[in-house]
Amino acid sequence: MKVLPQQPQTFRTSIPVRFADCDPAGIVFYPRYFEMFNSVVEDWCAQALGMSFRDMHLQHGIGLPTVHLETDFIAPSELGDVLQAELTVEKIGGASMSIVIRLLGAGNDERVRAKLVLAMMDLRARCAIALPPELRASAALFCIAEPDN
Amino acid sequence: MKVLPQQPQTFRTSIPVRFADCDPAGIVFYPRYFEMFNSVVEDWCAQALGMSFRDMHLQHGIGLPTVHLETDFIAPSELGDVLQAELTVEKIGGASMSIVIRLLGAGNDERVRAKLVLAMMDLRARCAIALPPELRASAALFCIAEPDN
Amino acid sequence: MKVLPQQPQTFRTSIPVRFADCDPAGIVFYPRYFEMFNSVVEDWCAQALGMSFRDMHLQHGIGLPTVHLETDFIAPSELGDVLQAELTVEKIGGASMSIVIRLLGAGNDERVRAKLVLAMMDLRARCAIALPPELRASAALFCIAEPDN
Amino acid sequence: MKVLPQQPQTFRTSIPVRFADCDPAGIVFYPRYFEMFNSVVEDWCAQALGMSFRDMHLQHGIGLPTVHLETDFIAPSELGDVLQAELTVEKIGGASMSIVIRLLGAGNDERVRAKLVLAMMDLRARCAIALPPELRASAALFCIAEPDN
Repeated sequence: MKVLPQQPQTFRTSIPVRFADCDPAGIVFYPRYFEMFNSVVEDWCAQALGMSFRDMHLQHGIGLPTVHLETDFIAPSELGDVLQAELTVEKIGGASMSIVIRLLGAGNDERVRAKLVLAMMDLRARCAIALPPELRASAALFCIAEPDN
Repeated sequence: MKVLPQQPQTFRTSIPVRFADCDPAGIVFYPRYFEMFNSVVEDWCAQALGMSFRDMHLQHGIGLPTVHLETDFIAPSELGDVLQAELTVEKIGGASMSIVIRLLGAGNDERVRAKLVLAMMDLRARCAIALPPELRASAALFCIAEPDN
Repeated sequence: MKVLPQQPQTFRTSIPVRFADCDPAGIVFYPRYFEMFNSVVEDWCAQALGMSFRDMHLQHGIGLPTVHLETDFIAPSELGDVLQAELTVEKIGGASMSIVIRLLGAGNDERVRAKLVLAMMDLRARCAIALPPELRASAALFCIAEPDN
Repeated sequence: MKVLPQQPQTFRTSIPVRFADCDPAGIVFYPRYFEMFNSVVEDWCAQALGMSFRDMHLQHGIGLPTVHLETDFIAPSELGDVLQAELTVEKIGGASMSIVIRLLGAGNDERVRAKLVLAMMDLRARCAIALPPELRASAALFCIAEPDN
């Protein structure tokens, strides 16, 4: 059965730019954006998909590592900025999904845009496994395209 | 003139333990606690002392580096824990202050206790300077002892 | 005048996987790979291009931020692994260059492959500027294609 | 049996200050010093004590977390500095040891001095256990005082 929302949802959260995030040029050091992305994915899983990273790792022995990403760093962000993060789902496969994360400044100006492919993994066997059905169904509400079957 | 509150205030904030904070043992990697401390100090300065790190660094050319610290790591914290941070001031000098930060678990159990000495610095000259009077007065509201004069 | 090597060079360095790099699954947390990439670029600039990040930032007021990247995380790396990094240049433009970084395991197995676009920036004006000619000439020795003119 | 060297050894390693280590003031962000300390301890365990963190965690199910530390940040370190780290042992107990780490600049000037208490832990049971005898004996070679018995 397909789960196809009429209007895909966007997951939103805000992220302060901390002193710890900034480099000698006074702007966010780009590896720190990936920590921000990871925290957005964590919040999305816990708050919108009903399965926290803690549950995945400690209870189910599964994880959701990033296996591919593409990122454009469009404009720098400074210490004290509060970034708005927006997450949508581009595509859901059997064992993975493609998501898009955008970070915006106070004036809705785009700072960073990224596409990430997240794969569901069995942590012990270190192999890909199918996305849990409930998580898949919840993620589909954020998806702009029809999921694969 | 002395600023001496009857009952010193405690600055409180909450800090989620992120995947990025945890090590292969599944608990917070201790250097990450210091990033948490720094974010507590940032929030305290911006919200309670009326001078953000951004203002200090970009407008005033000053900073508030940690010059000494002592820390007890009492019990480990796990992925998904939400820590309660409590900050009080132990002593205020002319160019520095001693603060105490405690991180507590959900059951008010102590996880980490730290004493930090923060010094006010001129960033260009790289020398200690007097605490700005307004910041000093605001910090004194969190102080358990009478400030030096 | 064109600088076109017959056989492009590869810049190589080795990177130990530290405890600090690893997540609760016992493998490298992917944002840490970007810190590794940045250190490879730092070493390449200092050792092969004749201009360290310190020189760029402190003497010349310029920087070399990453403005775009694509990364495939092919296989996980564990605590204690020593990764071999290989850097080559794919294309050199007027104000930017595309580089490829590969991280390999002990058996020459590919772990991570990334393409990064680095742009030369004036740090004060925050705008793109031309690559310094000496740096450009040195970088061309690592380039598989003829530089633009 | 006591292991008591006439002249205690010092473990030495060098640590470059990376772009990733530096803050908007252009100097090392203090939490990064603790990552440096951790890498010094990792190298000491692997190279001098005969038991790497990988062996501890993956083979033996033990770890060596820091349970207490005191640190003086004496002078700032800049991007591009190469710090010399020196590690000695101050005291060895049954399940823990106190070590001293100093970071020096190029002119042997002291930048950071820290005392850390490391405890041997069973990672599953999360309780303190006795230091393995071989590791204890090797550590004693770096100790300025006679170990407890």
